[in-house]
Amino acid sequence: MTLWDGRFEGGPTGEMQRFSESLTDDLPLFEQDIAGSIAHATMLGEVGLLSAEEAATLRDGLLAVGDELRAGSWTPGIEHEDVHMAIEARLTEKVGEVGGKLHTARSRNDQVATDVRLWLKAALPGLDGALARLLAALLDRAETDGRTLIPGFTHLQRGQPIWLGHHLLAHAWTLARDRDRLADALRRVDQSPLGACAMAGTPHPIDRERTAELLGFASVLDNAMDAVSCRDHLLEVASVCAITMTHLSRMAEELVLWSTREFGLVRLGDGYTTGSSIMPNKRNPDAAELVRGKAGRVVGDLQALLTMVKALPLAYDRDLQEDKRPLIDAVLTTTACASISAGMFATLTVERGRYADEMRGDFALATELADHLVTRGVPFRDAHHVAGRLVRWCEERGVGFDALSLDLLRDHHRSFGDDALTWLDPEAAAERRTSLGGTAWSEVSRQLTTLRATLPVEP
Amino acid sequence: MTLWDGRFEGGPTGEMQRFSESLTDDLPLFEQDIAGSIAHATMLGEVGLLSAEEAATLRDGLLAVGDELRAGSWTPGIEHEDVHMAIEARLTEKVGEVGGKLHTARSRNDQVATDVRLWLKAALPGLDGALARLLAALLDRAETDGRTLIPGFTHLQRGQPIWLGHHLLAHAWTLARDRDRLADALRRVDQSPLGACAMAGTPHPIDRERTAELLGFASVLDNAMDAVSCRDHLLEVASVCAITMTHLSRMAEELVLWSTREFGLVRLGDGYTTGSSIMPNKRNPDAAELVRGKAGRVVGDLQALLTMVKALPLAYDRDLQEDKRPLIDAVLTTTACASISAGMFATLTVERGRYADEMRGDFALATELADHLVTRGVPFRDAHHVAGRLVRWCEERGVGFDALSLDLLRDHHRSFGDDALTWLDPEAAAERRTSLGGTAWSEVSRQLTTLRATLPVEP
Amino acid sequence: MTLWDGRFEGGPTGEMQRFSESLTDDLPLFEQDIAGSIAHATMLGEVGLLSAEEAATLRDGLLAVGDELRAGSWTPGIEHEDVHMAIEARLTEKVGEVGGKLHTARSRNDQVATDVRLWLKAALPGLDGALARLLAALLDRAETDGRTLIPGFTHLQRGQPIWLGHHLLAHAWTLARDRDRLADALRRVDQSPLGACAMAGTPHPIDRERTAELLGFASVLDNAMDAVSCRDHLLEVASVCAITMTHLSRMAEELVLWSTREFGLVRLGDGYTTGSSIMPNKRNPDAAELVRGKAGRVVGDLQALLTMVKALPLAYDRDLQEDKRPLIDAVLTTTACASISAGMFATLTVERGRYADEMRGDFALATELADHLVTRGVPFRDAHHVAGRLVRWCEERGVGFDALSLDLLRDHHRSFGDDALTWLDPEAAAERRTSLGGTAWSEVSRQLTTLRATLPVEP
Amino acid sequence: MTLWDGRFEGGPTGEMQRFSESLTDDLPLFEQDIAGSIAHATMLGEVGLLSAEEAATLRDGLLAVGDELRAGSWTPGIEHEDVHMAIEARLTEKVGEVGGKLHTARSRNDQVATDVRLWLKAALPGLDGALARLLAALLDRAETDGRTLIPGFTHLQRGQPIWLGHHLLAHAWTLARDRDRLADALRRVDQSPLGACAMAGTPHPIDRERTAELLGFASVLDNAMDAVSCRDHLLEVASVCAITMTHLSRMAEELVLWSTREFGLVRLGDGYTTGSSIMPNKRNPDAAELVRGKAGRVVGDLQALLTMVKALPLAYDRDLQEDKRPLIDAVLTTTACASISAGMFATLTVERGRYADEMRGDFALATELADHLVTRGVPFRDAHHVAGRLVRWCEERGVGFDALSLDLLRDHHRSFGDDALTWLDPEAAAERRTSLGGTAWSEVSRQLTTLRATLPVEP
Repeated sequence: MTLWDGRFEGGPTGEMQRFSESLTDDLPLFEQDIAGSIAHATMLGEVGLLSAEEAATLRDGLLAVGDELRAGSWTPGIEHEDVHMAIEARLTEKVGEVGGKLHTARSRNDQVATDVRLWLKAALPGLDGALARLLAALLDRAETDGRTLIPGFTHLQRGQPIWLGHHLLAHAWTLARDRDRLADALRRVDQSPLGACAMAGTPHPIDRERTAELLGFASVLDNAMDAVSCRDHLLEVASVCAITMTHLSRMAEELVLWSTREFGLVRLGDGYTTGSSIMPNKRNPDAAELVRGKAGRVVGDLQALLTMVKALPLAYDRDLQEDKRPLIDAVLTTTACASISAGMFATLTVERGRYADEMRGDFALATELADHLVTRGVPFRDAHHVAGRLVRWCEERGVGFDALSLDLLRDHHRSFGDDALTWLDPEAAAERRTSLGGTAWSEVSRQLTTLRATLPVEP
Repeated sequence: MTLWDGRFEGGPTGEMQRFSESLTDDLPLFEQDIAGSIAHATMLGEVGLLSAEEAATLRDGLLAVGDELRAGSWTPGIEHEDVHMAIEARLTEKVGEVGGKLHTARSRNDQVATDVRLWLKAALPGLDGALARLLAALLDRAETDGRTLIPGFTHLQRGQPIWLGHHLLAHAWTLARDRDRLADALRRVDQSPLGACAMAGTPHPIDRERTAELLGFASVLDNAMDAVSCRDHLLEVASVCAITMTHLSRMAEELVLWSTREFGLVRLGDGYTTGSSIMPNKRNPDAAELVRGKAGRVVGDLQALLTMVKALPLAYDRDLQEDKRPLIDAVLTTTACASISAGMFATLTVERGRYADEMRGDFALATELADHLVTRGVPFRDAHHVAGRLVRWCEERGVGFDALSLDLLRDHHRSFGDDALTWLDPEAAAERRTSLGGTAWSEVSRQLTTLRATLPVEP
Repeated sequence: MTLWDGRFEGGPTGEMQRFSESLTDDLPLFEQDIAGSIAHATMLGEVGLLSAEEAATLRDGLLAVGDELRAGSWTPGIEHEDVHMAIEARLTEKVGEVGGKLHTARSRNDQVATDVRLWLKAALPGLDGALARLLAALLDRAETDGRTLIPGFTHLQRGQPIWLGHHLLAHAWTLARDRDRLADALRRVDQSPLGACAMAGTPHPIDRERTAELLGFASVLDNAMDAVSCRDHLLEVASVCAITMTHLSRMAEELVLWSTREFGLVRLGDGYTTGSSIMPNKRNPDAAELVRGKAGRVVGDLQALLTMVKALPLAYDRDLQEDKRPLIDAVLTTTACASISAGMFATLTVERGRYADEMRGDFALATELADHLVTRGVPFRDAHHVAGRLVRWCEERGVGFDALSLDLLRDHHRSFGDDALTWLDPEAAAERRTSLGGTAWSEVSRQLTTLRATLPVEP
Repeated sequence: MTLWDGRFEGGPTGEMQRFSESLTDDLPLFEQDIAGSIAHATMLGEVGLLSAEEAATLRDGLLAVGDELRAGSWTPGIEHEDVHMAIEARLTEKVGEVGGKLHTARSRNDQVATDVRLWLKAALPGLDGALARLLAALLDRAETDGRTLIPGFTHLQRGQPIWLGHHLLAHAWTLARDRDRLADALRRVDQSPLGACAMAGTPHPIDRERTAELLGFASVLDNAMDAVSCRDHLLEVASVCAITMTHLSRMAEELVLWSTREFGLVRLGDGYTTGSSIMPNKRNPDAAELVRGKAGRVVGDLQALLTMVKALPLAYDRDLQEDKRPLIDAVLTTTACASISAGMFATLTVERGRYADEMRGDFALATELADHLVTRGVPFRDAHHVAGRLVRWCEERGVGFDALSLDLLRDHHRSFGDDALTWLDPEAAAERRTSLGGTAWSEVSRQLTTLRATLPVEP
C-alpha cells in the first residue's frame, strides 16, 4: 500500500516501480527529511493541530528511524518509492496510527523542497571550506615558492618574466570570487518552503515562521506555488559549481603541463600521481587529470538541470524528481575536486631554478626593450616594432638577446639609452612592474595580505 | 600592416584573415572601446606619460572616430582584425604619429577585458529593466484578473482551486530573484582590468584607480594576470541569463497551453500572435513559442562558454576571442524575451469565467474533504484515503462531487460534520488557504505590496 | 601493493584513493573484462607467449572470478582502483604467479577500451529492442485506435482534422530512424582495440585478429594510438541516445497533455500513473513526466562527455576514466525510457469520441474552404484570405462553422460551389488528404505495413 | 499585409516584428527556397494544378528574384518576416496575381523543411571536402616527416618512443570516421518533405516523388506530420559537427603544445600565427587556439538544438524557427575549422631532431626492459616491477638509462640477456613494435595506403 492509493485499482508494474523510485538518489537526504519532519511535528504540536503527546511520539519515532538509518539496521527498499515515503512508512510501523498525522498540512512537494534546501545548507559550507583550503594552499605556495622566476604565458608562448607567486594569486582571486558567488547562492537557498503544501497553502493554522526558525532558515518563501515549483536555487548552485570547476580545470591543466618533462616546473607529490600498468617509467598527474575530467561531469550536471526545467509548467511536475542526482553530484564532485587540488598544491615541489638561466636572453624580454624606448619618448607602436625587429635579427642568427650589444641596439633605433642592456635582466624586469596588480613582489605581497584576510580564522 | 608585424615575414592568408577576424562579434563594443581609450589617454596625460596636448589630440581623435562609427561614415573591414585594432588604425590616420602612443602601458588583453566589462555595465541594467517591466506586468495582471478561479495544477492535472493571482505571483517571485542574481553578477563585473597590460602590469607610472574612476568602475581588479584571463564574470552573467530563460520558458509554456482551445484560459493580444500560411483559422502564440525556443539558444550560449573556458591555461589564449558572441547573444536575447513577455502579459485577455462552473464538483476539491476530516480529528493519511475513495465512487458512476450528499459522505466516514458539503465551494476553498503564502486573496494582496516595492519608481 | 608501484615511495592518500577509484562506475563492465582477458590469454597461448597449461590456468581462474562476482561471494573494494585491477588481483590470489603473465602485451589502456566496446556490443541491442517494442506499441495503437478523429496541432492550436493513427506514425518514423542511427553507431563500435597496448603496439608476436574473432568483433582498429585514445564512438552513442530522448520527451509531453482534463484524449494505465500525497483526486502521468525529465539527464551525459574530451592531447589521459559513468547512464536510461514508453502506449485508453462532435464546425476546417476554392481556380493566397475572413465573421458572432450557409459563403466569394458545405465534414476532410504521406487512412495503412516490416520477427 | 492576416485586426508591434523575424538567420537559404519553389511550380504545372503558362511565369519570376538576391539589387527587410515570405512577396510584385498560386498545396512548414534539407545537401559535401583535405594534409605530413622520433605521450608524460607518423595517423583515423558519420547523416537528410503541407498532406493531386526527383532527393518522407516536425536530422548533423570539433580541438591542443618553446616540436607557418600588441617576441598559434575555442561554440550549438527540441509537441511549433542559426553555424564553423587545420598541417615545420638525442637514455624506454625480460620468460608483472626499480635507481642518482650497465641490470634481475642494452635504442624500440597497428614504420606505411584510398581522387 502506498500512501496515495485510495483511488487506484492497479498498482505500478515492477518495471514502473524500478523506473520511478528515487531512493538511490534521495537517500542522502534522510537526515534532512527527519529534521524537517521533527520541526513540522513540533510546530503542529505548538499550534494545537497535534496534542503534545502526539508531537512527542512523532519526534521520538523519527529520531529512532534516524538512528536505524544511520546504524544501517533498517534499509528502505524500492517499494517505498522515495526516502520520504520510506521514513513515514517506517515511522508508522513504529508509532502506529499517529504516524498518519505527520502529513497534516504538509505535502511531499514542500517536504522535498525543504529537504533539498536543508541538504544544501549543510553541504555548501563544506564546499566553501574546501575552496578556502585550496585558496590557503595557493597562498602558502606563493609564500614559499612565489619568488621563482617563470615566463608569464599567453597563448602558451612565453610572454614576460613574472614571479610564480603572481601567477598563483591569479588563481587565488578566482577562488575568492567563487566563494562570493557561493555565499550569494546560499543566501537564496536559505529560505523555507515548509508549509507551502501542495502549492496553495493550507486551511490549517500552521506557523511557517516557527518551522523555519526550528530548521535554522533565514526566512520564509512568500508564495506557496513558488516554494514548491521553483528550482532556480538549484540551477544557481549548479552554475556556481560549474564555474568553479572551470577554474579548477584551468589549474589542473597547468599542473599537467608543468609536470611534463618539457615544462619541468613542478613535481607532484607521490600521493597525487600514479604509475602505468605497462610503462614502468610513468609518473602520471592523475589527480589533476581527474579534476580536469570531472569539470565535464559538473558541466553535464548543470546542462541536465537546465534542460529538465526548461518549459515546465507550474507547479510540481514529476520531472523534477530527477533534479537531485545532478545537484548532489555537482556539489560533492566540486567539493572533492577543490579538496584534492588543495592537496596537490600543498604537496608539490617547485623546481625553482627551472627557468632561471633559460630566461636570460629569452625573447620574453622583448617588451623590456620596447618599454625602455617608451621611457625615452618613442611612441609605443614604434618601440614595439623596433623590439620585434631585434627579435628577428637574433632569430635569423640563431642567438638570444644575450648576444645584443648597445651598438647593435642603436643601429636599430638611435634612442636606446646607456642603460638599455640592464633592462634585459629578467628578475629586474619582473620587479619593475610595480603598477597596481603588477608582478613586482611588493604587489604580490600586498595581495597575499588581502587574500589571507578573506580566509576563515582556522581554515 | 598590422600592429604586431615587426617580426613576421609572411602575413596571414586570406582564409586565415577571415577565420580569425572578430569584427562581426566585437563591433558592438565600439562605444566602450572608445570610452576606454579616452580614459586611458586622459590618465596618461595626467601622470605625464603623454603631454597634455597629446592627450587632448588623442581624445579628440577618438571622439571623431566614434562619431564616424555612429554615423556609419566609416566602416572597418576585416583587414583590421577586430574593433580595437580598427579604431586605433583609424585614429592614427586622423591624428598621425601620436596615435602610436595610445598603446603605452596597455595591451589588447586588458583593453578587451575592459571593453567587455563596460559593455556589460551598460547592457545589464537594460536586462534588469526588462525583467522589472515583466514583473510589473505580472503584478498588474494579478491585480486586474487575479481573482479568477482556476485549478492549481501539479503534473498538469487539476490539483486544488486557486486564484490566478496566486499563480502569477509565483512567476513574479522567480523574476525578483533573477533580478537579485543579476545585481550580484553586476557587482562582480564592476571591476576595472584596465592597466593590467599583457598580464604582468607595467613599469610605467600609470594610475589604474584613476581610469577606473573615469570609467565609473566601482573598484580595480587586484591582479593583472587575473584581470586579463578570468572569464568567470562572463560565465556568471550567462548563467543568470540561462536561469532567467528557464523562467521565461515556463511562463511561455503556460501561455501556449492556456491559449489552446482546450485550456481556453487566455487570449493573447493580436500583436503577439500570427496566423498560418496555409490554415486560415490559426491564431498561434508565436511570441511565447519563440521565447520558449530561445531558452535553448541561451542555454547553448552558456554551454559554449563553459566548454571554451574549460582547461585553458593562463593567461590570455586566443580561444577567448570566441567569448563575445555567446555572451552578447545571451544578454540581448534574454532582454528581448523578457520585454516581449512583458508585452504578452500586458495585452492578453483572461477568460475569467473559464473554470468558474467547471470547478464546482471538480475532483480538485478532494483535498477539501480530507482537510475537513482533519479538522475533525481524523489523521491526515486516513482522511486522504477516504477522499480518494469518494473520488473513485464518483468516477465509477460518472458523476462529479456535486452528486455527493452528506449521507453518502458519512457512509464513507462517520466523522464528516454537518457543514461538510460547504467545504466543496471552490472559491471558499481558495479563500480558506490563509497560511503564509497560501492562495487566499489576503496573502496574494500582501505579496503584491511586497513585490511592488521592489520595482523601480518609474519602471 | 598496486601493479605499478615499483618506483614510488609514497602511496596515494586515503582521500586520493577515494577520489581516483572508479569501481563504482566500471564494475558493470566485469563480464566484459573477464571475457576480454580470457580471449587475450587464449591468444597468448595460441601464439606461444604462454604455454597451453598457463593459458588454461588463466582461463579457469578468470571464469572462477567471474562466478564469484556474479554470485556476490567476492566483492572488490576501492583499494583495487578499478574493476580491471581488482579482477587481476583476485586472479593472482587464485592462480598464483602465472596471473602476472596475463598482462603480457596488454595495457590497461587497450583493456579498458575493449571492455567498453564489448559492453556496448551487449547493451545496444537491448536499447534497440526497447525501441522496437515501443515502435510496435505505436503501430498496435495506431491499428486499434488510429481511426480516432483528432485535430492535428501546430503551435498547439488546432490545425486540421487528422486521424490519430497519422499522428502516432509520425512518432514511429522517428523511432525507425533512431534505430538506424543506432545500427550505424554500433558498426563503428564493433572494432577491436585489444592488442594496441599502451598506444604503440608491442614487440611480442600477438594476433589481434584472433582476439577480435574470439570476442566477436567485426574488425580490428588499425592504429594503436587511435585505438586507446579515441572516444568518438562513445560520443556517437551518447548523441544517438540524446536524440532518441528528445523523441521520447516529445511523446511524453503529448501524453501529459492528452491526459489532462482539458485535452482528455487518453487515460494512462494505472500502472503508469501515481496519486498525490495530499490531493486524493490526482492521477498523475508520472511515467511520462519522468521520461521527459530524464531527457535532461541524457542530454547532460552527452554534454559531460563532449566537455571532457574537448582539447585532450593524445594518447590516454586519466580524464577519460570519467567517460564510463555518463556513457552507461545514457544507454541504460534511454533503454528504460523506451521500455516504459512502450508500456504506456500499450496500456493507455483512447477516448475515441473526445473530438468527434467538437470538430464539427471547428475552425480547424478553414483550410477545407480554402482548398475548395482552389479546386475552383481561386489562387491559394486569395482563397486563404477568404477563409480567414469567414473565421472572423464567425468569431464576431460567437458561432462555429456549422452556422455557415452557402449564401453566406458566396457573399464572401462568388466561386464557392454547390457542394462547398460538404467540405466541412471533418472525417471527409481527413480522408480527402490522400497525397503521399497525407492523413487519409489509405496512407496510414500503407505506412503501417512498411513500418511493421522493419521490426524483428518476434519483438 | 502579411500572407495570413485575413482574420486579424491588430498587426504585430514593431518590437514583435523585430523579435520574430528570422531573415538574418534564414537568408542563407534563399537559393534553396527558390529551387524548391521552382520544383513545386513545375510539378503543379505537370499535374494540371497550374497551367503550363502559369508554371512558366512562376519559374521565370523566381529565377529573376534569385538573380536580384544574388546581385544584391533587391534586399528583403524585416517586414517580410522570413526569407520565404520575402521571396513570395517579391515574386508577386513581379508576376502579379499568379504569384498567389505558388502556395497551392504547400505550407511554410514543408517549405522550410525542404529548404533546410536542400541547404544541408549543398553544405555537407563542403564539410566533407574540408575533412578530406585535412586528412590528406595529415597523410602528407606523415609521409614527409613521419619518421621523426618522438615520445608517445600518455597523461602528457613521455611513454614510449614512437614515430610521429604513428601519432598523426591516429588523428587521421578519427577523421575517416567523422567522414563516415557525415555520410550516414547525409543519407538521413536526403529525403524530401515537400508536399507534406501543414502536417496532413493535401487533397490536391500533387506528385511528391516528382518534386523529390527535380530537387535531387534520394527519397520521399513517408509521413506528412513527421516530415514537417522532425528535427532529428538537424540534431544528428550538429552531433557529427560537435564530435568532429572535439577531434579538431585535440589536434589544435597538440599544435599549441608542440609549438611552445618547451616542447619545441613544430613551428607553425606564419600564415597561421600572429604577434602581440604589446610583446614583440610573441609568435602565437592563434589558428589552433581559435579552432580549440570554436569547439565550445559548436558544442553550444548542439546543446541549443537539443534543449529547443526537448518536449515539443507535434507538429510544427514556432520554437523551431530558432533551429537554423545553430545548425548553419555548426556546419560552417566546423567546415572552416577543418579547412584551417588542413592549412596548419600543410604549412608547419617539424623540428625533426627535437627528441633524437633526448630520447637516448630517457625513461620512456623502461617498457623495453620489461618487454626484454618477458621474452626471457619473466611474467610481465614482475618484469614491469624490475624496470620500475631501475627507473628509481637512476632517479636517485640523477642519471638516465644511458648510465645502465649489463651488470647493473643483472643485479636487478638475473634474467637479463646479453643483448639487453641494445633494447634501449629508441629507434629500434619503435621499429620493434610490429604488431598490427603498432608504431613500426611498416605499420604506419600500411595505414597510409589504406587511408589514402579513402580520399576523393582529387581532394
